[in-house]
Amino acid sequence: MNLVGIVMGSDSDFNVMEDAIKVLKEFGVSFEVKVSSAHRTLERTLNWVKEFEGQGGKVIIAGAGMAAHLPGVVAGATTLPVIGVPIRSGALEGVDALYAIVQMPPGIPVATVGINAAKNAGLLGVQMLANADDQLKEALHNYRVKMAQGVEEKDKALQEKLQK
Amino acid sequence: MNLVGIVMGSDSDFNVMEDAIKVLKEFGVSFEVKVSSAHRTLERTLNWVKEFEGQGGKVIIAGAGMAAHLPGVVAGATTLPVIGVPIRSGALEGVDALYAIVQMPPGIPVATVGINAAKNAGLLGVQMLANADDQLKEALHNYRVKMAQGVEEKDKALQEKLQK
Amino acid sequence: MNLVGIVMGSDSDFNVMEDAIKVLKEFGVSFEVKVSSAHRTLERTLNWVKEFEGQGGKVIIAGAGMAAHLPGVVAGATTLPVIGVPIRSGALEGVDALYAIVQMPPGIPVATVGINAAKNAGLLGVQMLANADDQLKEALHNYRVKMAQGVEEKDKALQEKLQK
Amino acid sequence: MNLVGIVMGSDSDFNVMEDAIKVLKEFGVSFEVKVSSAHRTLERTLNWVKEFEGQGGKVIIAGAGMAAHLPGVVAGATTLPVIGVPIRSGALEGVDALYAIVQMPPGIPVATVGINAAKNAGLLGVQMLANADDQLKEALHNYRVKMAQGVEEKDKALQEKLQK
Amino acid sequence: MNLVGIVMGSDSDFNVMEDAIKVLKEFGVSFEVKVSSAHRTLERTLNWVKEFEGQGGKVIIAGAGMAAHLPGVVAGATTLPVIGVPIRSGALEGVDALYAIVQMPPGIPVATVGINAAKNAGLLGVQMLANADDQLKEALHNYRVKMAQGVEEKDKALQEKLQK
Amino acid sequence: MNLVGIVMGSDSDFNVMEDAIKVLKEFGVSFEVKVSSAHRTLERTLNWVKEFEGQGGKVIIAGAGMAAHLPGVVAGATTLPVIGVPIRSGALEGVDALYAIVQMPPGIPVATVGINAAKNAGLLGVQMLANADDQLKEALHNYRVKMAQGVEEKDKALQEKLQK
Amino acid sequence: MNLVGIVMGSDSDFNVMEDAIKVLKEFGVSFEVKVSSAHRTLERTLNWVKEFEGQGGKVIIAGAGMAAHLPGVVAGATTLPVIGVPIRSGALEGVDALYAIVQMPPGIPVATVGINAAKNAGLLGVQMLANADDQLKEALHNYRVKMAQGVEEKDKALQEKLQK
Amino acid sequence: MNLVGIVMGSDSDFNVMEDAIKVLKEFGVSFEVKVSSAHRTLERTLNWVKEFEGQGGKVIIAGAGMAAHLPGVVAGATTLPVIGVPIRSGALEGVDALYAIVQMPPGIPVATVGINAAKNAGLLGVQMLANADDQLKEALHNYRVKMAQGVEEKDKALQEKLQK
Repeated sequence: MNLVGIVMGSDSDFNVMEDAIKVLKEFGVSFEVKVSSAHRTLERTLNWVKEFEGQGGKVIIAGAGMAAHLPGVVAGATTLPVIGVPIRSGALEGVDALYAIVQMPPGIPVATVGINAAKNAGLLGVQMLANADDQLKEALHNYRVKMAQGVEEKDKALQEKLQK
Repeated sequence: MNLVGIVMGSDSDFNVMEDAIKVLKEFGVSFEVKVSSAHRTLERTLNWVKEFEGQGGKVIIAGAGMAAHLPGVVAGATTLPVIGVPIRSGALEGVDALYAIVQMPPGIPVATVGINAAKNAGLLGVQMLANADDQLKEALHNYRVKMAQGVEEKDKALQEKLQK
Repeated sequence: MNLVGIVMGSDSDFNVMEDAIKVLKEFGVSFEVKVSSAHRTLERTLNWVKEFEGQGGKVIIAGAGMAAHLPGVVAGATTLPVIGVPIRSGALEGVDALYAIVQMPPGIPVATVGINAAKNAGLLGVQMLANADDQLKEALHNYRVKMAQGVEEKDKALQEKLQK
Repeated sequence: MNLVGIVMGSDSDFNVMEDAIKVLKEFGVSFEVKVSSAHRTLERTLNWVKEFEGQGGKVIIAGAGMAAHLPGVVAGATTLPVIGVPIRSGALEGVDALYAIVQMPPGIPVATVGINAAKNAGLLGVQMLANADDQLKEALHNYRVKMAQGVEEKDKALQEKLQK
Repeated sequence: MNLVGIVMGSDSDFNVMEDAIKVLKEFGVSFEVKVSSAHRTLERTLNWVKEFEGQGGKVIIAGAGMAAHLPGVVAGATTLPVIGVPIRSGALEGVDALYAIVQMPPGIPVATVGINAAKNAGLLGVQMLANADDQLKEALHNYRVKMAQGVEEKDKALQEKLQK
Repeated sequence: MNLVGIVMGSDSDFNVMEDAIKVLKEFGVSFEVKVSSAHRTLERTLNWVKEFEGQGGKVIIAGAGMAAHLPGVVAGATTLPVIGVPIRSGALEGVDALYAIVQMPPGIPVATVGINAAKNAGLLGVQMLANADDQLKEALHNYRVKMAQGVEEKDKALQEKLQK
Repeated sequence: MNLVGIVMGSDSDFNVMEDAIKVLKEFGVSFEVKVSSAHRTLERTLNWVKEFEGQGGKVIIAGAGMAAHLPGVVAGATTLPVIGVPIRSGALEGVDALYAIVQMPPGIPVATVGINAAKNAGLLGVQMLANADDQLKEALHNYRVKMAQGVEEKDKALQEKLQK
Repeated sequence: MNLVGIVMGSDSDFNVMEDAIKVLKEFGVSFEVKVSSAHRTLERTLNWVKEFEGQGGKVIIAGAGMAAHLPGVVAGATTLPVIGVPIRSGALEGVDALYAIVQMPPGIPVATVGINAAKNAGLLGVQMLANADDQLKEALHNYRVKMAQGVEEKDKALQEKLQK
């Protein structure tokens, strides 16, 4: 049983979506990855969504570029929360994907993150799961502490650099 | 048997899509109209596409606003030419719908017309059908002649107005 | 103990954010509403976030217009999932708010919905909670069924209208 | 007699428009290619359109960048369906071309595809022709099946890669 | 013999283009007005351009909205300077028209003014003619003086208003 | 006495503005070039404009990037026709310069060409001068003929390439 | 001697710029208002800037719409800090003015506030002056306290409204 | 005691913000630099602002990219003038940062400069300080004179280059 399902329309999106995988691994959250298209393999996509939900999946992360329909189509097929990642590609650099994911009609929301922000999609997935998992909650807290320390260290390094 | 199928995700799109209907009526082209959503009633939409194609339909016109997935989802379910009408609505005034319809990934085209340009969608449908129908071809020719006359009459009226 | 906290920077955002409240009431989800600003009352906002999380709150919905910092600032102060609603206002009609909410830096995600889409924010909140609440899960399923019926009824009404 | 005519304003557009040619060759559809400009050789362009239509041509694909007038000018000179390809070039990266092609005034539609999406233009042309050609219809069906298989293979390859 | 020709694709553009006429009248510059379309009556448009140039016309002002091809098509048919007026209309509010007029390919310039700025188009036409007409030159100088006085008067009025 | 004055705010704009110089040389039109800023050397700029006009100059071409004020400031200081060239630079890629040049307030027009379109600026200048110079008029005509031949030759070359 | 100078190109901008005046009055800061244009009365504008600076003025607030050159031209004529207010007008709704004010070239900054944000321009001017005026500093502090109280009162009112 | 505080959310912004440092050094203005985030180390950021103001700081320069909240959050925590630098990064190339900084709500202004325009931020800071420092005032004047000379030298170099 995997808690998070990551789906993308093409394997060319993998280098972006990999950032979500890294986050899930870091938090020890079980996941599965699927390449399936909203247009070329719609039925297969819908079947995967049903199976994933049926087996106990809790959150879906869907990434797509250009006229990015995959997150919305997945969101229409499940009541699980769906996180959408607009992918930067083509002449419009991901603005098309952002609009096509975030501007969903009333009734079928997609939780949209920034363009190419698969890392934040992973974190958002973890935050959703942490509501029912105190260990994850604590891990998130530690992650925030570490991020804060990272900022402090960078500041320290800059101060030293400037003093030279 | 209807040659053109017009589908929209919500009856609120009807006042725009009606322009396509008027054109089809003017040219005597048989058509049917469907309200069905890419997200709320996806299966029903796909079934209608299959039935429409099965009964001998030739062209589909799909209108949608905001994160407009309907034309692309319909296009993925048929090899009939699909004409997409981006509908002006919401804060982005139809730019979102335009991008979500026209920027389809390779393999599944949507023949996109301008924002709210359902009249042009109807005409484009007629032009596609006219390739196999000489009467329609002639009707299109006459339509163009009438449009040209309309321009000339407007010019004449303006000249008279200016002379006063 | 309230499960969902709704926060907005100004009471002028209430007429939009009210759509989220209606959804939560419809699903019987407990909630509280707060007017507090990221700039004018930052400390008060941060205190409210801490209190809300401390008392067992699970999801925060934050709405803001223009240079919309409230959702991001709230997200930085909690590991609860934060849903951001860009509000349409001013010369940029909410595009500024959309960018200021969705384009969060790596590490602090905001689950962004469409411009003015407070209804979808409410539904997304319910979907997050439903992962740990079977009754909500069922209610969401019924909601989807009702939406689908609504589409079918609108289609039926349109068919009748067209036949006249 | 060629069924599809491909026209572009400059040979610098050829590397994009070539994608349409490849599709037409793959489907065995006869075509001709023309370099002719809407501004520098307007009469020659109009003559070619008339000749192409006169000899039995069925679909025109027109590609242009920046203030892309070629597709619209061609569409005004024929009642054949005209497919417009906005080409990415210059500081506006093809958004200018997209608007200049898709936003045609009422009466003269252009079937617009995505920026640089000449492949989809070719496919759309084939779909239009397939309405009167059962063999093409079947070829399109097979093309879709192959695309679906491509997605499945990519998924399989990714699963294997992830298992390592 | 008229020095300036004003052409627009539809009489609905007249309320904007009228501002150019007012300027030309104010400066006593002879002009003619034509309603003719780049798509619906292309040949008639080209004929008018040739006639206008043949009879001694010096400057053409062309106004158009949406996918505004008229100024560019006219510019391709003459070596007279052509002034383009993007007209605000439709969902894109004239940005489409601006791009479709100003982004002309190398070789065929259009002197573009602001969206709906027909007054400036008229003035620019007068400025072009004034290079060979000392009386016009002086009239332009006086016009500038009057504009400056207008600013000073408005300033004076505001000072009085503020003192109250 | 030079007929055309070319002014730019920085020598970094020269590589773009050079295209205008080439055109003027090709047509044998006398010109001068000036580096002068609307902000850093405003008085010097205004003096140059006055001198240029005083010595019999007829057309000014002004290029600028970002918040491009130079063309408008020059236009305010003369009644000569001023041609503005928006230069592509910085994060907005010239859209800022385009808006800052073309959207002039009523009374002070700037004849705007496309982003980086200095070649078209040069041609537009020649077209303005040709109204009072039959030799230039003929040269422009020949230039157009040569451009048309260039298109035809490119077409011929493509046909040969495709036949191989 | 006035500390703040407010300048606008047209009295039609007064209804927006009035918000800056109200703030300055509220803080008891002396000011003067000028209608003067960057294009129609450039010399007069430059003279006013010199006089204002000469008499001991400390901050200039300049408002302008469309191709908004006034703030930048003023900034080039003084080393006083200049605050620019982009005014919403015309088809581009102030985006043109924003870009034309904020994207100043290196060397001549304009402190830009939001579109139509004359109130913030006034406050920014007060903040600059407060660095040398402890009373103003305290007044600003009190202003912030009052703003915070305003938020709290709105929150209280909303809580009461929701309880009904 | 440092007069100017420069804060950025990440050390990756340093290569842009360094331009402000160079200006401050050139004018001999004391400054300090801080890496601190609006989201990851909010409290630390607020503490630094309070300390900086407490020790006699006069101006804060804050740089941030994407959903750039840092300048606005800092502005909410102090009544010192805050200069915001939108940093170019990510798919939206700094337009998101520009909107997120400049479109501040009424009451909390940020003095925004152009995208990546840290040099202008530094100069604006110096201009603010110069109101109470005659030496700085004179240095600014000299800086302007040098800039003007730079333009003149570039012009001279270009003239020589063109004469060859």
